[in-house]
Amino acid sequence: MTEELVIREDRGAVTHLTLNLPGKLNALSDGMIAALTEVFGALMISETQRVIVLKGAGKAFCAGHDLKEMQAKRDSNDRGAAALRDLFDRCARMMQMIPRLPQPVIAQTHGIATAAGCQLVASCDLAVAAEDCRFGVNGVNIGLFCSTPMVALSRNAPRKQVFEMLVTGDFISAARAREIGLINRIAPSETLEAETEALAEQIAAKLGSAVRVGKRAFYDQIQLPLDKAYEMTGAVMVENMLDRNTAEGISAFLDKRKPDWSQG
Amino acid sequence: MTEELVIREDRGAVTHLTLNLPGKLNALSDGMIAALTEVFGALMISETQRVIVLKGAGKAFCAGHDLKEMQAKRDSNDRGAAALRDLFDRCARMMQMIPRLPQPVIAQTHGIATAAGCQLVASCDLAVAAEDCRFGVNGVNIGLFCSTPMVALSRNAPRKQVFEMLVTGDFISAARAREIGLINRIAPSETLEAETEALAEQIAAKLGSAVRVGKRAFYDQIQLPLDKAYEMTGAVMVENMLDRNTAEGISAFLDKRKPDWSQG
Amino acid sequence: MTEELVIREDRGAVTHLTLNLPGKLNALSDGMIAALTEVFGALMISETQRVIVLKGAGKAFCAGHDLKEMQAKRDSNDRGAAALRDLFDRCARMMQMIPRLPQPVIAQTHGIATAAGCQLVASCDLAVAAEDCRFGVNGVNIGLFCSTPMVALSRNAPRKQVFEMLVTGDFISAARAREIGLINRIAPSETLEAETEALAEQIAAKLGSAVRVGKRAFYDQIQLPLDKAYEMTGAVMVENMLDRNTAEGISAFLDKRKPDWSQG
Repeated sequence: MTEELVIREDRGAVTHLTLNLPGKLNALSDGMIAALTEVFGALMISETQRVIVLKGAGKAFCAGHDLKEMQAKRDSNDRGAAALRDLFDRCARMMQMIPRLPQPVIAQTHGIATAAGCQLVASCDLAVAAEDCRFGVNGVNIGLFCSTPMVALSRNAPRKQVFEMLVTGDFISAARAREIGLINRIAPSETLEAETEALAEQIAAKLGSAVRVGKRAFYDQIQLPLDKAYEMTGAVMVENMLDRNTAEGISAFLDKRKPDWSQG
Repeated sequence: MTEELVIREDRGAVTHLTLNLPGKLNALSDGMIAALTEVFGALMISETQRVIVLKGAGKAFCAGHDLKEMQAKRDSNDRGAAALRDLFDRCARMMQMIPRLPQPVIAQTHGIATAAGCQLVASCDLAVAAEDCRFGVNGVNIGLFCSTPMVALSRNAPRKQVFEMLVTGDFISAARAREIGLINRIAPSETLEAETEALAEQIAAKLGSAVRVGKRAFYDQIQLPLDKAYEMTGAVMVENMLDRNTAEGISAFLDKRKPDWSQG
Repeated sequence: MTEELVIREDRGAVTHLTLNLPGKLNALSDGMIAALTEVFGALMISETQRVIVLKGAGKAFCAGHDLKEMQAKRDSNDRGAAALRDLFDRCARMMQMIPRLPQPVIAQTHGIATAAGCQLVASCDLAVAAEDCRFGVNGVNIGLFCSTPMVALSRNAPRKQVFEMLVTGDFISAARAREIGLINRIAPSETLEAETEALAEQIAAKLGSAVRVGKRAFYDQIQLPLDKAYEMTGAVMVENMLDRNTAEGISAFLDKRKPDWSQG
């Protein structure tokens, strides 16, 4: 069932995940959230997969929540309060799995990424966008302010730029998204897949253990005061240095040869 | 008395506030701070006004504190310590009312916005600047570091760029201000008023209750750790969804018709 | 011994510090960290020096830690754990001295600034780069994720841009470094020294006491919630106002004459 909503394809150490509900612009329905949660859970403990690429089938990356499904939840005694609270909790948990995944996650976006779909891009570690891709947090247009998407978005981009997107509901271009920090790279549509894959492969070729401890430390330290951030990352540097593959990596660099990381 | 220092004009749901002390470049004198505090207090509980535009009469938006008035406070036993402390407290309280106002506040700036005048721009939710408008935190030039303005400014723009403005006292152009995140949009002087008003009207046309809960949540979540931010905004999303006008907004979108928000 | 690793030259109120281990691209060896700690300690209590310029001898600004020296620390019962922990602690303490120095510190960078060398740039208050200077946190290429450098870097630039540098190990240009907030200015190689010195002299000509309290307040307030930040900086403004040279500075401005700051 849920497998079909997210197609997983492992190409070597790079896992490609495709949101597969193109008829609904890959809406984050209950099923889609469950499917993403499930596949992220599996990847959380994977010992082979080093990078994840997240993309969408059909015309768009992701258009946010499934509004029809949300409206249907209103048919209850509490007018949907409990069911909606549960939905936003499940969605927020799924979004927060991304920074906690040991693998860097690259959003590969095309078409549109709106509302919770824009939140998904902001939640990823990296993003590559097709040059005609557009981004928006446009819930305000239908009376539903994008309050959960803004959590991720306001941790990527400056506050006035985020506030403008939230209250106008306007789309921004890929070029503007890159200027404000929401995405990393822009590619022509024809080469989007190839350029994203090249980035994924470049990262997958690094020492996996180093990337793993580094990504975890990145999100841990970013919420700490400066002195605590250094205390924590100092310990991480020691842990990283004691990895025998890191010893080999440094030796190889000093000897001007390629490292032999086949051991770990 | 104080009414004249800030001219309030309501054009439908958009309130235009004009700093009206052009002979002193709209300095934030004791009277001006009191007038802004008073009008913000009135707007805080307004049930009709949805957007606020803040602008300056005469040649400039605002040139900061009233230095002559500040110097006069020194004529006391404590060399002005208590009176100055009171001034900075009143000013900081006024500045902090802006993010707490239920209405989005747009700074419409021209000429210069310096020191506490630049702080005022940074404290607004949005800013539109005339293309020849210049921004600076230039107190350092007269021996008074812009320590309170930097609180607002460093929450808008990256720290090295803010530090440079603070220690050099140099002006930056509107174009540079947009690059670093201090303002949203730039307009030719002739169309500044019209472009700002169009932005204000666009926001005023949204569902007021949604904008209100969204703005409040924006500043609440930005100071929280990620998990707490999601917990809080999840509750906000439910509150927003239970608004009958939001139910109507989503239904209208699904039915491909205009929402009827006349009820709320 | 250590004096030679960092050359200190005082030109009036501006201190120029040159990392002087060009054969190792000014690596942050144990000796270099000790030398920087010592000179920063001396400047911490200087009553004459108002601005510090930090630069590198030879081909590059700084290429990070001394890898050969680090590898040698492994020859112990704990595989180097204690010695490495000590190294990262000493380095972090030195880096954290920079924001606590009373003088603004300007990094003047050329060639490359990589790993802990890029951290050094990020830790400075300001940075001016030669137009062909390149920046990277490329430890990941040898299996050592730049976890401590990212503490400083992620407090300068948006997170997706920092994450990309960390996991790809790619260099970025000076132009890109300015776009993301890591540096302030770019100069042609031939005028780098002169343009940095002009900036240093401009800052040195300000009232020293004002710059001192302002810099300290800048880093204190940036980690506080908005209301606490205003409470603290309000007190700083009063302290600054009570400085007799500030009184003179404001009087001179109101009288349209140059201030006489020879008294303090």
